[in-house]
Amino acid sequence: MSEKPWGGRFESPTNEFVEAFNASIDVDARMYAEDIAGSRAHAKMLTAQGILSHEDCNAILRGLDEILGEINSGEFEFTIALEDVHMNIEARLTDKIGDAGKRLHTARSRNDQVATDTRLYLRRRTVDIMGRIRHLQKVLVLLAEEHAETIMPGFTHLQTAQPVTLGHHLLAYVEMFKRDAGRFADASARMNRCPLGSAALAGTTFPIDRHMTATELGFDGPTDNSLDAVSDRDFIMELLAAASITAVHLSRFSEELILWMSAQFQFVDLPDAFCTGSSIMPQKKNPDMPELVRGKTGRIIGGLVAILTTVKSLPLAYNKDMQEDKASIFDAFDNLEGSLRVFGDMLPGMKVNKSILHAAASSGFATATDLADALVRAGVPFRDAHEIVGKSVAHCIKEGIELHAMDEAACISIDDRLSADMVRALSVESCVAARDHIGGTAPNQVRLQVAAWKKELEI
Amino acid sequence: MSEKPWGGRFESPTNEFVEAFNASIDVDARMYAEDIAGSRAHAKMLTAQGILSHEDCNAILRGLDEILGEINSGEFEFTIALEDVHMNIEARLTDKIGDAGKRLHTARSRNDQVATDTRLYLRRRTVDIMGRIRHLQKVLVLLAEEHAETIMPGFTHLQTAQPVTLGHHLLAYVEMFKRDAGRFADASARMNRCPLGSAALAGTTFPIDRHMTATELGFDGPTDNSLDAVSDRDFIMELLAAASITAVHLSRFSEELILWMSAQFQFVDLPDAFCTGSSIMPQKKNPDMPELVRGKTGRIIGGLVAILTTVKSLPLAYNKDMQEDKASIFDAFDNLEGSLRVFGDMLPGMKVNKSILHAAASSGFATATDLADALVRAGVPFRDAHEIVGKSVAHCIKEGIELHAMDEAACISIDDRLSADMVRALSVESCVAARDHIGGTAPNQVRLQVAAWKKELEI
Amino acid sequence: MSEKPWGGRFESPTNEFVEAFNASIDVDARMYAEDIAGSRAHAKMLTAQGILSHEDCNAILRGLDEILGEINSGEFEFTIALEDVHMNIEARLTDKIGDAGKRLHTARSRNDQVATDTRLYLRRRTVDIMGRIRHLQKVLVLLAEEHAETIMPGFTHLQTAQPVTLGHHLLAYVEMFKRDAGRFADASARMNRCPLGSAALAGTTFPIDRHMTATELGFDGPTDNSLDAVSDRDFIMELLAAASITAVHLSRFSEELILWMSAQFQFVDLPDAFCTGSSIMPQKKNPDMPELVRGKTGRIIGGLVAILTTVKSLPLAYNKDMQEDKASIFDAFDNLEGSLRVFGDMLPGMKVNKSILHAAASSGFATATDLADALVRAGVPFRDAHEIVGKSVAHCIKEGIELHAMDEAACISIDDRLSADMVRALSVESCVAARDHIGGTAPNQVRLQVAAWKKELEI
Amino acid sequence: MSEKPWGGRFESPTNEFVEAFNASIDVDARMYAEDIAGSRAHAKMLTAQGILSHEDCNAILRGLDEILGEINSGEFEFTIALEDVHMNIEARLTDKIGDAGKRLHTARSRNDQVATDTRLYLRRRTVDIMGRIRHLQKVLVLLAEEHAETIMPGFTHLQTAQPVTLGHHLLAYVEMFKRDAGRFADASARMNRCPLGSAALAGTTFPIDRHMTATELGFDGPTDNSLDAVSDRDFIMELLAAASITAVHLSRFSEELILWMSAQFQFVDLPDAFCTGSSIMPQKKNPDMPELVRGKTGRIIGGLVAILTTVKSLPLAYNKDMQEDKASIFDAFDNLEGSLRVFGDMLPGMKVNKSILHAAASSGFATATDLADALVRAGVPFRDAHEIVGKSVAHCIKEGIELHAMDEAACISIDDRLSADMVRALSVESCVAARDHIGGTAPNQVRLQVAAWKKELEI
Repeated sequence: MSEKPWGGRFESPTNEFVEAFNASIDVDARMYAEDIAGSRAHAKMLTAQGILSHEDCNAILRGLDEILGEINSGEFEFTIALEDVHMNIEARLTDKIGDAGKRLHTARSRNDQVATDTRLYLRRRTVDIMGRIRHLQKVLVLLAEEHAETIMPGFTHLQTAQPVTLGHHLLAYVEMFKRDAGRFADASARMNRCPLGSAALAGTTFPIDRHMTATELGFDGPTDNSLDAVSDRDFIMELLAAASITAVHLSRFSEELILWMSAQFQFVDLPDAFCTGSSIMPQKKNPDMPELVRGKTGRIIGGLVAILTTVKSLPLAYNKDMQEDKASIFDAFDNLEGSLRVFGDMLPGMKVNKSILHAAASSGFATATDLADALVRAGVPFRDAHEIVGKSVAHCIKEGIELHAMDEAACISIDDRLSADMVRALSVESCVAARDHIGGTAPNQVRLQVAAWKKELEI
Repeated sequence: MSEKPWGGRFESPTNEFVEAFNASIDVDARMYAEDIAGSRAHAKMLTAQGILSHEDCNAILRGLDEILGEINSGEFEFTIALEDVHMNIEARLTDKIGDAGKRLHTARSRNDQVATDTRLYLRRRTVDIMGRIRHLQKVLVLLAEEHAETIMPGFTHLQTAQPVTLGHHLLAYVEMFKRDAGRFADASARMNRCPLGSAALAGTTFPIDRHMTATELGFDGPTDNSLDAVSDRDFIMELLAAASITAVHLSRFSEELILWMSAQFQFVDLPDAFCTGSSIMPQKKNPDMPELVRGKTGRIIGGLVAILTTVKSLPLAYNKDMQEDKASIFDAFDNLEGSLRVFGDMLPGMKVNKSILHAAASSGFATATDLADALVRAGVPFRDAHEIVGKSVAHCIKEGIELHAMDEAACISIDDRLSADMVRALSVESCVAARDHIGGTAPNQVRLQVAAWKKELEI
Repeated sequence: MSEKPWGGRFESPTNEFVEAFNASIDVDARMYAEDIAGSRAHAKMLTAQGILSHEDCNAILRGLDEILGEINSGEFEFTIALEDVHMNIEARLTDKIGDAGKRLHTARSRNDQVATDTRLYLRRRTVDIMGRIRHLQKVLVLLAEEHAETIMPGFTHLQTAQPVTLGHHLLAYVEMFKRDAGRFADASARMNRCPLGSAALAGTTFPIDRHMTATELGFDGPTDNSLDAVSDRDFIMELLAAASITAVHLSRFSEELILWMSAQFQFVDLPDAFCTGSSIMPQKKNPDMPELVRGKTGRIIGGLVAILTTVKSLPLAYNKDMQEDKASIFDAFDNLEGSLRVFGDMLPGMKVNKSILHAAASSGFATATDLADALVRAGVPFRDAHEIVGKSVAHCIKEGIELHAMDEAACISIDDRLSADMVRALSVESCVAARDHIGGTAPNQVRLQVAAWKKELEI
Repeated sequence: MSEKPWGGRFESPTNEFVEAFNASIDVDARMYAEDIAGSRAHAKMLTAQGILSHEDCNAILRGLDEILGEINSGEFEFTIALEDVHMNIEARLTDKIGDAGKRLHTARSRNDQVATDTRLYLRRRTVDIMGRIRHLQKVLVLLAEEHAETIMPGFTHLQTAQPVTLGHHLLAYVEMFKRDAGRFADASARMNRCPLGSAALAGTTFPIDRHMTATELGFDGPTDNSLDAVSDRDFIMELLAAASITAVHLSRFSEELILWMSAQFQFVDLPDAFCTGSSIMPQKKNPDMPELVRGKTGRIIGGLVAILTTVKSLPLAYNKDMQEDKASIFDAFDNLEGSLRVFGDMLPGMKVNKSILHAAASSGFATATDLADALVRAGVPFRDAHEIVGKSVAHCIKEGIELHAMDEAACISIDDRLSADMVRALSVESCVAARDHIGGTAPNQVRLQVAAWKKELEI
């Protein structure tokens, strides 16, 4: 009975299936480095405060270092009987160094310990994800530079709308990823307070120095309220929200790549190394990576729902429900980081079919807006100009021609303010070049933006 | 290159990280028995139809049996280079028996294969879950029988409302679980059609007999449309919806057990074997199991959201996104089955504090409705009766007494239709006994319901 | 104070903002017909059981009929001071007929009343939705009949996979909608039990006849447990799950229509009456309806999450949280019914560009699988055949030709088991015709399926 | 036909039901002030740039002012035939001022217009919500000051854990709300860029000045990429994530208030003005407000899921699906703001039952941790101390006494390092006073925190 760290008041042993069902070691073992770092900081602080002897402290630090080595080298055996990463490590420590190991948990509880470990672990993973975002942004900026003048159809409602430049299109994603990185940074900053010292829920009776442990572990300071500190899972919710929005962006990009790879679009070709084939159809080259990334969006959003639903309505302070907080975010971070990595590696090898893009932009009346604008410049109110061009398009569809092919007679038959000169002046090149203001699709603007991004991203 | 089953048309090998990111073997390996069963049925059918020789068929069946043995005994090595359970098994088969192994995939695709495997696997797991539900219902019915006369406060808004019997309360959950089982049964019936023979998406050019494979695998028949058969993940959505609703029921029950275990309620005591203690607070005995089960509800609902979001907007037929379908439901089923098991094992050991329940039911004006009903029977319109009793309660709160302690003077001062006889007649026993109609809380009704359940559940 | 039906024990009036925040009348007023039907049944039952006089009953029935008329004609003024539809109607009844009105609430609570109203209302709406599904199925079956031989490319991973018939493709949705209707039917059957008589939570002390009210209101019988009956919102969760899955199906169809309407696909043209234009781009004709329907999928899934999250962890019996149950499902049902209606009305006017479909099916090596099958029939193991065809496709891509254009030399250079005769035999017509088994895409199978559906749907 | 702003190229009128289904006026009308502000800024900029005449500009500004007056006074009639708020206002403007009205839409599209309106509107609403959060924080800080020394049981797992101060408990929520406000502020800052000038998707051919409109409308500057600007709904996702997390906090607080109001806890009493009664049970006083707020959490989370699911997989740029973006967030903001308001108004009137709180803290072995700490201070390793106290608690439960009542013999029988002096020193007052470090529950710390909050919140 007394093997459990809490067995004292219990009369019968834990049910065997309960032991397995209750254990979190499968999920939390991956935080071992953070758990050891937290214990090291705690031991040093206890010693500085005179709560632990220097001798005990040295034994603890040495023991923890050995354990870190054992885990890194794969020698360490985690066991579900010891429930979680904290108890697995502490038990091993006591095996190694005896009573000193039993003193480590002074002025601490698993409640503040797991809160600290999780913040440390997610802080590290968030840095990794932000690095992946930044790398993907760089890849996109370089691609955008290459395609500052590559004209393609811009879509709204997946209908040809107006010509745009591919560089402009790619930079739209760079904007999205900038906001994504901003959200991760904000969440990480809000998370970066140290719960250690909150103990079970109310603080401790020992004269601890919470600033010391906070500094030692790279936090901006200690949390201000112990009840909040052990109950708070905001950082998981906020990071999962940031991950979900990033995944939504990747899903949009994926959707486009999948469309663009289709026989109907043929806008791009993704490298073989990022596609797979079919076990039955020998001709297939499938855009598996964007599909998989798009599919994982659901899983990441599901993780966000999981944590929101789990924490909803929980009274203060710690409740066991919270043990379910890690599976979702670990899974989401793994999938998001992998998705970002795949995109960053895949896109440099993408082939762009410029001629198909240009042809697609040149058909479908993509220049109609510019014709309306020309009428406006000739004094026609915009709404009237819009209607005149609308009728011109209807005429062209019936005749099977494009706008620039309308002759004078056709123009005048629709409205005498319309002229063959106006329609002849329409070209996709002039369309994109004319949109030469901040945020516009003109090659000039793309180049300006690329330059700004290069500076910001230190390319 | 040609190691991949689809390598023929590819010029460069798969990116290494992509290989790992793309592989599903970690998740789908657990369907190996179903994959082998499906292959056996397919081989037999191909042979019966003259597409495969008897010699090849025998080799295949023998080889598959050996592989099943290898996996069961832990000898089999799954590798991510072979992507999934299907290819791992087929590659091993070809290792063993040569060309015959390469013939097995005739008239089949991984698209219909995985659809078949998943249905077979989930059909088996659904039976297990329904068994766990049924077991839990039996446990609750026996507890309800024991507590047919145990009086406790019934709550609305967590305020004392009216006295009820604990047996009645427990049977409310038996009703919920009945609907849950019904949903699983309906989903399972809808799922029980065999996709095998749909091939990649359009069927096959070989003269297959889909009725034969369907029958061999215990399906009710083949699916009627191949495009639908390989695109359909309704069964996963529907099973996850059923799982989510069941989890919501368990979360409600969990919430009650957690409340009832608190120092403030003290209604019940859960067995030591299903509780844990604290690493810092020696006195703690925590209701970990209901907390954990309540927490897992979020994860199961998250899984439902994941699959709905993933499948949303996917064009026909198979898309790689669908590979993400299994992780969520496998996780949800594991957690739901574990939760049901824990409840079924834990509840028989729960101690009920009858005297505390009775005392709680006897205070808080739980009999006020019955006083209003008595006034109605004396001819007072219900709305007036309600108001008279409302005033009586206000009077009692001010005086610090219960309703039955009001004297004649007090009664008359409120309303002359109220009398001391009426209030003296109020008792929690008479309250519950009086609700003696279908669905009512009277001990008599509880016993009738218990008898009906015993018949239905074959206890 | 005593204006509230529960004001008796309260000393101060409700806060004004709380009154508005708490009121549900904006949402529940639309259940007025069901509320009145429930009250009528209740009054008749009370009378039959001798709890209400015939005189009072007649007054009540007459009063309720008048109120129904007032609401139908728009004369009735709902007020938030009276909280909900129940109190608005009861207060008006008492205005009209005096004390008899105050007797109507005998042996009843708003808890069982709202549970009854909601089930009645949703039962009616579910019938409407099932009617819309059935209508849409009919539309699709007739379209499928028209296009039993229309050949189009079948896609997996949005890559050209194999030729299929458009009729077959459309029938895939008829299958999905059949399962959808089945889920609504199952949910409706499970819901069709009458909670009336459960009163607040425990039943009532009056000698009610629950079978009578259940029968009067068209239920299959009374609910069996009063605590469950007032706490149960399973039917809302289950109906929202059914609605979500149906919406996912509509979103997939929408995605396809949007793709098919694009300049790149041009597979179909949707009627003007179901499209809109742009305020700035005169040429635009946007597939607004499928886009809107696809967008509403998120909202419906959101509604499902809302109810699951709201009910999660609620102790028995009624809690105020449950008032939030109606907004989500009413919104979801409105949007789903509208979506189904739009699709049913829009599809008959859709123009299909057969020649584009045929051309798309004829390119992209859609017949590769059939070439592999031909090799298998010539004795080549499937896996080898697959690889030979894979190499052939790679050869053709390099040469810029289709498979059937390979000459004998080219064939033999790849594998001597391949021949020019084999590749010349490939045609999309023979591909689809060859898939002539249950579920296959052959025109013959489409016609058989259409005939079966016509019988099932009584077309 | 040409009544629609885009009717030119269409041959048949919009289907009547489609018109209603497609219209967004019911939802977006509430953004009228922002729409008018945006149009005013746009007209001034066009004039400054020489695109619009001063005469036209004056007419437009005057016309828009009149329309604003009409809407504010309720005279304006919105019609679904004009689809949305933009067209309703523009049509009325043209009615009033003729051709000048038709010129307003020059260099603009509804795509950038609605993006601008929505950001302006949500910016205003976010300020309101942050104000409500701040007000609620102030209320809590004052309550915390009042209860800096009020001792209550602190819970983990809803089991009595250690004594805490109510002030400390209330300040935990002040921490949560601070993070909430931070999230709203971050989201608002990220959103505060002006999309106007992005036109349909690519910018415009007119020489616009985007800085001018951005400044006029109080934005930090224009957005940098037009494709992103019209496709971006990040701000809705992020604001809904912030709203969801805030709602989760409110749900936790609600859960506690509901528990505390129960007959079993009796920790607090909420004011009558924020409670309601029962239509059947005259004694009931229900905590409707916290229940309703807890229930609304589901709806707000559902709204987050809705927008994430809707935007998932949408290709650039604008798609009609996005019209569904507003319903969810408007509903969520209304519910969240109402919830915050109700809590801010309700809590000052809450009565706290100090004696019940104190008694609850004094039982249940809440001081056990302090006994273990005392043993540690006497040299016992923490793990051993924990076990000794665990056994003491088991002993006390058997004897039916509290820890401080153990005599010397009992102490020694458990462990000779335990003494009667140690247990006699235990009191809840000393327990809380001893946790006197940053974040600890000591009255001293509460007062320090209150002082810090008063400064930060300018109380």
